[in-house]
Amino acid sequence: MAHLPTRSFQAHQVFAANTNVGKTILSTGLVRAAAALAIGAEKKRMKAFYLKPVQTGYPVDCDARHVKTYAPLVETSRLYAYPDPVSPHIATTEPPPDTEVLQATIKALRSFKQSLGHADKGWALLETAGGVNSPIMSGELQSRFYRPLRLPTVLVGDSHLGGISTTLTSYESLHQYGYDIPALLLFHNKSRNHEFLDKYLAKAENRPLVHVLPSPPEKLADPAADAEQLHEYYKRTESYFRHVVEELDRAHQQRLDRLEELGEKARTKIWWPFTQHKTVKDVTIIDSAYGDIMTTYVEPSKDAMTATGDNNSSSSSSQDNQAKEWRWREMFDGCASWWTQGLGHGSPELTRSAAYAAGRYGHVMFPECAHEPAVKLSETLLETVGQDWASRVFFSDNGSTAIEVALKMALKSTQDRYVHMGGQNNNTTGRIEVIGIDGGYHGDTIGAMNACSPNAYNAQVSWYKSHGHWFTPPTVVYKDSQFQITIPQEMTEGFSGSDPTLKVTIDNLSSVFAKPSESDPRLAIYRHHIRSTLTRLTQGEKRQFGALLMEPVLMGAGGMVWVDPAFQRCLVEEVRDFKGFGTVEPSYQDKSQGLTNDWSGLPVVFDEVFSGCWRLGRKSAADMLQVKPDIAAYAKLLTGGLITLATTLTTEPIFNNFLSDTKTDALLHGHSYTAHPIGCAVANTSLQTYREMESHGDADQAREDWGALSHGPLGVWSLWDQKVVDKISRLEIVQGVVPLGSVLAIQMRETDGPSGYASMLSQKVQQKMREKGDPEVAIFGRPLGNVVYMIASQVSTREQLAKVENILLRTLEGPL
Amino acid sequence: MAHLPTRSFQAHQVFAANTNVGKTILSTGLVRAAAALAIGAEKKRMKAFYLKPVQTGYPVDCDARHVKTYAPLVETSRLYAYPDPVSPHIATTEPPPDTEVLQATIKALRSFKQSLGHADKGWALLETAGGVNSPIMSGELQSRFYRPLRLPTVLVGDSHLGGISTTLTSYESLHQYGYDIPALLLFHNKSRNHEFLDKYLAKAENRPLVHVLPSPPEKLADPAADAEQLHEYYKRTESYFRHVVEELDRAHQQRLDRLEELGEKARTKIWWPFTQHKTVKDVTIIDSAYGDIMTTYVEPSKDAMTATGDNNSSSSSSQDNQAKEWRWREMFDGCASWWTQGLGHGSPELTRSAAYAAGRYGHVMFPECAHEPAVKLSETLLETVGQDWASRVFFSDNGSTAIEVALKMALKSTQDRYVHMGGQNNNTTGRIEVIGIDGGYHGDTIGAMNACSPNAYNAQVSWYKSHGHWFTPPTVVYKDSQFQITIPQEMTEGFSGSDPTLKVTIDNLSSVFAKPSESDPRLAIYRHHIRSTLTRLTQGEKRQFGALLMEPVLMGAGGMVWVDPAFQRCLVEEVRDFKGFGTVEPSYQDKSQGLTNDWSGLPVVFDEVFSGCWRLGRKSAADMLQVKPDIAAYAKLLTGGLITLATTLTTEPIFNNFLSDTKTDALLHGHSYTAHPIGCAVANTSLQTYREMESHGDADQAREDWGALSHGPLGVWSLWDQKVVDKISRLEIVQGVVPLGSVLAIQMRETDGPSGYASMLSQKVQQKMREKGDPEVAIFGRPLGNVVYMIASQVSTREQLAKVENILLRTLEGPL
Repeated sequence: MAHLPTRSFQAHQVFAANTNVGKTILSTGLVRAAAALAIGAEKKRMKAFYLKPVQTGYPVDCDARHVKTYAPLVETSRLYAYPDPVSPHIATTEPPPDTEVLQATIKALRSFKQSLGHADKGWALLETAGGVNSPIMSGELQSRFYRPLRLPTVLVGDSHLGGISTTLTSYESLHQYGYDIPALLLFHNKSRNHEFLDKYLAKAENRPLVHVLPSPPEKLADPAADAEQLHEYYKRTESYFRHVVEELDRAHQQRLDRLEELGEKARTKIWWPFTQHKTVKDVTIIDSAYGDIMTTYVEPSKDAMTATGDNNSSSSSSQDNQAKEWRWREMFDGCASWWTQGLGHGSPELTRSAAYAAGRYGHVMFPECAHEPAVKLSETLLETVGQDWASRVFFSDNGSTAIEVALKMALKSTQDRYVHMGGQNNNTTGRIEVIGIDGGYHGDTIGAMNACSPNAYNAQVSWYKSHGHWFTPPTVVYKDSQFQITIPQEMTEGFSGSDPTLKVTIDNLSSVFAKPSESDPRLAIYRHHIRSTLTRLTQGEKRQFGALLMEPVLMGAGGMVWVDPAFQRCLVEEVRDFKGFGTVEPSYQDKSQGLTNDWSGLPVVFDEVFSGCWRLGRKSAADMLQVKPDIAAYAKLLTGGLITLATTLTTEPIFNNFLSDTKTDALLHGHSYTAHPIGCAVANTSLQTYREMESHGDADQAREDWGALSHGPLGVWSLWDQKVVDKISRLEIVQGVVPLGSVLAIQMRETDGPSGYASMLSQKVQQKMREKGDPEVAIFGRPLGNVVYMIASQVSTREQLAKVENILLRTLEGPL
Repeated sequence: MAHLPTRSFQAHQVFAANTNVGKTILSTGLVRAAAALAIGAEKKRMKAFYLKPVQTGYPVDCDARHVKTYAPLVETSRLYAYPDPVSPHIATTEPPPDTEVLQATIKALRSFKQSLGHADKGWALLETAGGVNSPIMSGELQSRFYRPLRLPTVLVGDSHLGGISTTLTSYESLHQYGYDIPALLLFHNKSRNHEFLDKYLAKAENRPLVHVLPSPPEKLADPAADAEQLHEYYKRTESYFRHVVEELDRAHQQRLDRLEELGEKARTKIWWPFTQHKTVKDVTIIDSAYGDIMTTYVEPSKDAMTATGDNNSSSSSSQDNQAKEWRWREMFDGCASWWTQGLGHGSPELTRSAAYAAGRYGHVMFPECAHEPAVKLSETLLETVGQDWASRVFFSDNGSTAIEVALKMALKSTQDRYVHMGGQNNNTTGRIEVIGIDGGYHGDTIGAMNACSPNAYNAQVSWYKSHGHWFTPPTVVYKDSQFQITIPQEMTEGFSGSDPTLKVTIDNLSSVFAKPSESDPRLAIYRHHIRSTLTRLTQGEKRQFGALLMEPVLMGAGGMVWVDPAFQRCLVEEVRDFKGFGTVEPSYQDKSQGLTNDWSGLPVVFDEVFSGCWRLGRKSAADMLQVKPDIAAYAKLLTGGLITLATTLTTEPIFNNFLSDTKTDALLHGHSYTAHPIGCAVANTSLQTYREMESHGDADQAREDWGALSHGPLGVWSLWDQKVVDKISRLEIVQGVVPLGSVLAIQMRETDGPSGYASMLSQKVQQKMREKGDPEVAIFGRPLGNVVYMIASQVSTREQLAKVENILLRTLEGPL
């Protein structure tokens, strides 16, 4: 647990704009002033702690010793020391792992905090080594290394000539890593840098207070005389430093004030999406996030931990405080922040890409324009998820708009072919419909809603109208250590040749995706059902269709339903082969100027908003199905989890259909920020990272565990531990598990209460998981009816997932 | 014109990580090597130019003299010199204006370029002063000051202990300002910083090549001996520097390669929004943008300038080159990049806010969560555009989704009141419709489309269906120096008391928005027409309505149609007073727990996506109408022109309608990146800036010119010059002008050819404006049927707008 500050305990870190700018002297002055501060009516002294995690040039140089010498009341600690007076990454050839150094740092701060008595106030200062972006032993930059703590930063500026620049670049770097910088400290100097910086930063958001302090004396050759004059200096400057400490305290209290007010403000001013405000209990106050972790601040009375007792804390006084005080809780982002996280929160690489694009362009106009991030992203998408089928990229803002664009592309194409091009319109509904899968979900704009079967999401939307036929799908789950396929009764009953008690089980995950042999009974059942249904709809009911639309492999918001890949493949094949969608089949191939991937039957639209971009392990779910769509939509993981952007990919024949000499024949759809450079730049970095992870074999262990290696490029695996998933699959309370890529979905057996989206079962499990967690680390999940799901990012570590698996398993094994 | 590089001329800038890191020595080595480089078969030497725009400590220090001494072949220039060896902002108390210094810098580079012979190759180096973020004379940071040139940067790193940090922070700052950094130069030093930096930056996007160069000799006391050893140093290191120059040349040529390929790649891989690909002529290749300017790179044969002849260039040889070569063109972003630009392209403040939010959070989950940027934005919106009426903020991704959310809010509220709550549904259409204004436009998702009258945008959309009644609006234009109001004939004809030849003219812009006196004939006409229409629709046609939806004041995409404010006010009042929307009026006031802003008649929804956030001068168009809506949508200017984000604001009674104990009664709408922290942070900075501009009276001159001052807070003005607008209004070819805030729309008189959106007239004017422009500065506009419009950003300067007005006026006055 990285976050420790409370009302009575605060910690700051000191970063410097450069070496030799007086970091240690200023740090000493600060802790010395803190330790001298008398608090409250009893004039009790504040307890001060100085921590130097990394010291080089030791023991000749020892900043902690300097502190102890000139501020004897201060408790000091030094964690790693190396004799060479060089950068830590050079000082040792055997660097300790970053996680170890970070844990040691946290432990030192925590120990000091726990040593505080009930009525004590504590003040800790962590002094970094070198400058903001100096590396620590492993070579990681300090700015990144300390980021999980996100301590408020005291920036020591450079007072020398030229120091304005190093001070401001350091400030900009820290700001870009998401640090708050309440104070900027400078020595008084004839360059008067402090005056300029004070004026300049006055305009900045979260402006740091600029403090100017008297310059320390020139170093004397005689050690005793030097010590004497330094003692004198610290004494003389005490009031200056006290003022800084007081201002830091004010900023600290204000920060907590703001956090404590956030929940109530949000409750009264915000209308949350997908939220029944009347039943909201806790507001999760998110202070910041990094990697898979969201750092939250928890109201005392609303804290589930308090109720179940917190026995991990060694100090009973601090435990008492915890019950009464607001406290921090780190939460594993188990829903990947609505399925967006690919590269973790606060990724420096994504931030840097975003900042560069913002600085280079801001946003620029897109129609008939070209800019590098958009063109590069188009190329990359066509090389990856669009490989071997797509040739065009259309940009929009989110998955729902990407689907609306896809529908506009498909429906006009079909309309032009079957209705306008000499064909006879046998439509009796007055509308071109889609063929889809029951339980599918394609977004919340009304066009995308109308392309879904009636469900809980659209039930109350006045303008919703089901525009389609929805096939009930055969589904797959992992249950009792086997992949079990359930075929809807209507399919087996309707097919004379099939066994009504047919059960299909498969041992290996990759085999679920393998093309079944022609003797597999499923194929005949599926084909017969699809053909007879299509015939009935078009000839019997005289309905007209414009697209086949589906989420390949996994239907997400509809309840993490894993559709039998064999069925989806059959559906695509049968729709493409079916001749009854229009009464004529024009010689469209001739029009498409030699391109061979023209559509037949209906355009096949894949909604890969959830499943695309390596979510399920492979670059796309289409790739897993071994099906090439005519149109497909991508969003969410596309931008690694930073910013909204969506794309719709399509083939040249679909694109060609919109070409003419008439402006209004074009696809007249666009959004103001279409292909905004930030989104495109961030997506480029994300896709490049996913590709590198793939080529580096990052998932090889998972592939081996799930028996995917022998299937080569057709292998399928889960990032979740095979043994844990197996155990879960055998629990009585579990109907089945869906382990695909970073997704782990568990369908719970609902015994009493409503089923589906209205079920409260997963909410109950999520609540228990918060309780089962370590008091300071818990799992943030979102309920989805009777389905409990966990979605990792693409960079979650095995260690991190093991912790989550452990909590999950304990919760499911225990009483609910 | 800031951008000069061609295939045969390149310019770089040298920035340093700190002072005293050897910037001048490395600069000298580079220009010296460039001047010594033999090019092509004839082994002709490259011409080299060294430019030091700002020199302090002069004449004791003179970097240009140093260059001339050790590289006599190099042409050198120094622009501003000050005797004090201090930072430029301290060296003078009378700083020259930034624009003057920038123009002098550009002029120096251009003069050198123009001095080049036909077969010459030129190489220029601009050496900055101090570090990356050191200020120039005015106090502006160099990083920002030089940004319009966006020269490729040679970063001189710091080789000393601690120099990794200053080098990387400088790199991050430059990157954040949108610079490309092809080379990082370091001296060889025992800290081995170059090794670390080379390894570290290998992972970076657009990685700079790290070059390590031999350290220069220690300075000798004897000037002659020192000069001697420096001569020796430069001679000895020549091959190192030559290598850097060659690599820079390679990066330069690759950059131009990439830009030259962009257009063709975009044409073949991208599907542009709102674009008939078959008729696309030129692709605008946008290299970068700053302020109101987009820097574009123009293909030779497609360059309209070439055809009209370019007589401004003093050198005939460079003119020849221009005709054959690709060239740069700066374009004023006259459509504000689809009406998004508020604070200009590449705004450092917006970039910084975006980077901080990205670093602190990335994106985090929103439902039942709170984070500071979203809460702060909600507060600010409720204090500004939502002042005195709104209490809740719902977040979505763009204007279209914000309108769909608004519709869902309104339609369910009406449905619950009139249909479910004991009322009798007299609906015969099977659908709840909206009341709107003919010509309105609300976005491209199908739900938003269905809330518009049939138009060119929705004509070919299979699922479009008009769900509403559309009033033909009375409109306003400025024509022949008067504001003229045109009332549709159907209104005057249908009203017995009115004069069928009624003409209403108003002299003053603000008076157009003033509430008419009760004796104004318009009021009776409007009221009668609205009442009788509502009665016919509900009682005669038995139609059921769920919302009044309109763009207040100005209908944007529908053709910049300015609706008579008096009519929109009447419409709101009449709809709110009308008792015939449902057969019961339940005692809804009791349910709303004492809140007094419950809706009556129908919820009034304002689409302020275009008009909101100070676009028309005042914070909202609702404010100009003096009407409080029940629901309103904001996007575009909300984020200052950087990134997509939208909000829907509403009252507590609308919100309360979704409260119940049942999850599915909630507003089940949400997007993955709802309230993404970057968007919220950027919006906070944008709104804060607009508010400050307002409180600082930035528009006071415009208010005075347009006679708005005497109207106090009810004043209305245009940022465009009153005299120019007046001239335009009197042109024969102009039907009328709409001058409101940053918008200037000119309705052209279409004499032959299709009218409205299908008209090609504005396209013709836009084309002419590109030709009339300075050869190197032109106007980027988007055609909108017969309407020519220019939209400035909120920070466009009078000088900038005057240039645009000049081109516009010349174009309209000339033959088309």
